[in-house]
Amino acid sequence: MEQKAHRYCVIMCGGIGSRFWPFSRARLPKQFIDFLGTGRTLLQMTFDRVRDIIPVENIIIITNERYTELVAEQLPDIDASQILAEPARRNTAPCIAWATAHIAARDPEASMMVCPSDHMITREKEFERNVLKGFEFVETHDALLTLGISPTRPETGYGYIQVGEPVAENINKVKTFTEKPNLELAQIFLNSGEFFWNSGMFLWSARSIREALKEYVPDIAGVFFGCEASTFLDPESERKFIAEAFPGCMSISIDYSVMEKAQNVYVETVDIGWNDLGTWGALYDLSPKNSERNVTQNCNVLSYNCAGTIFAVRGDKLIVADGLNDYIVADADGVLLICPKAREQKIKQMLTDATVKFGDKYE
Amino acid sequence: MEQKAHRYCVIMCGGIGSRFWPFSRARLPKQFIDFLGTGRTLLQMTFDRVRDIIPVENIIIITNERYTELVAEQLPDIDASQILAEPARRNTAPCIAWATAHIAARDPEASMMVCPSDHMITREKEFERNVLKGFEFVETHDALLTLGISPTRPETGYGYIQVGEPVAENINKVKTFTEKPNLELAQIFLNSGEFFWNSGMFLWSARSIREALKEYVPDIAGVFFGCEASTFLDPESERKFIAEAFPGCMSISIDYSVMEKAQNVYVETVDIGWNDLGTWGALYDLSPKNSERNVTQNCNVLSYNCAGTIFAVRGDKLIVADGLNDYIVADADGVLLICPKAREQKIKQMLTDATVKFGDKYE
Repeated sequence: MEQKAHRYCVIMCGGIGSRFWPFSRARLPKQFIDFLGTGRTLLQMTFDRVRDIIPVENIIIITNERYTELVAEQLPDIDASQILAEPARRNTAPCIAWATAHIAARDPEASMMVCPSDHMITREKEFERNVLKGFEFVETHDALLTLGISPTRPETGYGYIQVGEPVAENINKVKTFTEKPNLELAQIFLNSGEFFWNSGMFLWSARSIREALKEYVPDIAGVFFGCEASTFLDPESERKFIAEAFPGCMSISIDYSVMEKAQNVYVETVDIGWNDLGTWGALYDLSPKNSERNVTQNCNVLSYNCAGTIFAVRGDKLIVADGLNDYIVADADGVLLICPKAREQKIKQMLTDATVKFGDKYE
Repeated sequence: MEQKAHRYCVIMCGGIGSRFWPFSRARLPKQFIDFLGTGRTLLQMTFDRVRDIIPVENIIIITNERYTELVAEQLPDIDASQILAEPARRNTAPCIAWATAHIAARDPEASMMVCPSDHMITREKEFERNVLKGFEFVETHDALLTLGISPTRPETGYGYIQVGEPVAENINKVKTFTEKPNLELAQIFLNSGEFFWNSGMFLWSARSIREALKEYVPDIAGVFFGCEASTFLDPESERKFIAEAFPGCMSISIDYSVMEKAQNVYVETVDIGWNDLGTWGALYDLSPKNSERNVTQNCNVLSYNCAGTIFAVRGDKLIVADGLNDYIVADADGVLLICPKAREQKIKQMLTDATVKFGDKYE
């Protein structure tokens, strides 16, 4: 068995993309949408990127059970057995623990890439080159490797990784993690050249991540690594086990529970044309702009005295706007959002407020 | 035949309400909408008001031919013969000339009230009392009588009437007409106590308005009063005549062509809770407001840092808005308008721009 056959990819696509509400909705989150108007959804683009690196049968999609059919429809080349359906939302640590147990039961020598399904990467060849180098590193070191992106602006919505001593070309020991710094700190990070954005893409061997989970989140590790490996080989026994055990796991991210605590964490610094498409501002930044710096997505716009505004509408609609500077105007499926770009971090709270006030119909 | 039997009402409802775009649309103008959420459209409310004063069979609805069916549906108590269908838009002078000829052919002794179909009047008893007094006046004087409203603010969108010598209780000779003054002038008018808003509601005898039309717009009068009266008694001959003659009339308002020129013009000053519902600002002013002075029409709104804004949406939609002060947010049938209230006089131009750029689909 050549090395490539031991390589796996776990694509996580159970999120609801609430910061992109109302475009991203609980019943159709943004990873399932042709977000960039390319004819492929973000999940499909993610799959296309990794299928050149990883054998298709080794690509695992882990999602919420309500999206299982969507995944199967959008990725006809994978088998139903490659879709892991979470019965509850428990953040990334339980998700990764399950995927690791599932893969290790089939291949104890496995190495894995774990990645989100809703990011944009424009430099695919560079991505491929970096991922292959990362696989080689984690296959020869007991290492938890994260991909770090050179920051281009003092973004306050991301996590930052400070690099320590170099251990290989573009691979360094991680010195510190800092989640969502304030603007002043973000500017210092940017100027220093020592800090990189945490992309949320990880590489490790199944063995290394299992040991790290056992050490730092023993409760979760106990659930997935305390039972017979054969549990994960039979779809029916796996389904029953997960239905019972998964909802009882605590909800915690892999960053907070493992990456910020483990001693064997490394960062591979990459330049792959990455954008997490995490916010309207991110989409605005990467979109073509007209002479007033307005961005128009899928709609007809007549704008007067508007600048720096993004107009995004699902459906054949006309927007007539006067006097909006640096706003987000988004309209989809019964929800219209008009919000200054500077307050986009509040959108998640607005969705919560809407749900509290009007129930889940606008979710 | 008692006097009441000679009284007629002409309700004009051929307009498209473009200043209320996108709520008011070419295919369903605002007079056909339950605009105030009362369960009755503005046309129906107008009809309800006059049917207590005028015999139902004497109420004439004059509209554009594309709205004939809408009128028939909304006013099932009138006969099809009471609906006059204009084959072209020619403003109010040709409209009134035709209605006068139509009525005079049936009753040369007729007196008439002419009124728009899309105004709000809250004090119905006072309206009735004033209209009856007005009928008595025009039945005993060769007079063109207009209803004047006491101004409550320096509105620049209305026409103003300056009163001259009194001739009866609350009835005065008209001294001057001033269309849409600037703010400074409007404030002077308001302070003087001598100026009243032109409501667009008129009373006169068929004979008086016919003579005035003959004198001041002989071209139009020649069309409608130069043919046999019997033309207007048979629906089929009337239809044929109008199809041929009406489009050739010049497009001109009764105010400009007759009221501002004639010597026998009088104003009855009334206090009837009137609002012309002519603009979003007018609707805002009369609507109940929340603690941030926002107005919500037919929609769910979550507002943050918004004040003095009107949210109006057709359909079950959620609006989430942040940072809009003194705006209009209106969404209906594929058009979303976001516009400062202070620029509402531009809405008509925006509709024109939309039509030039995208054709008539958003009209």
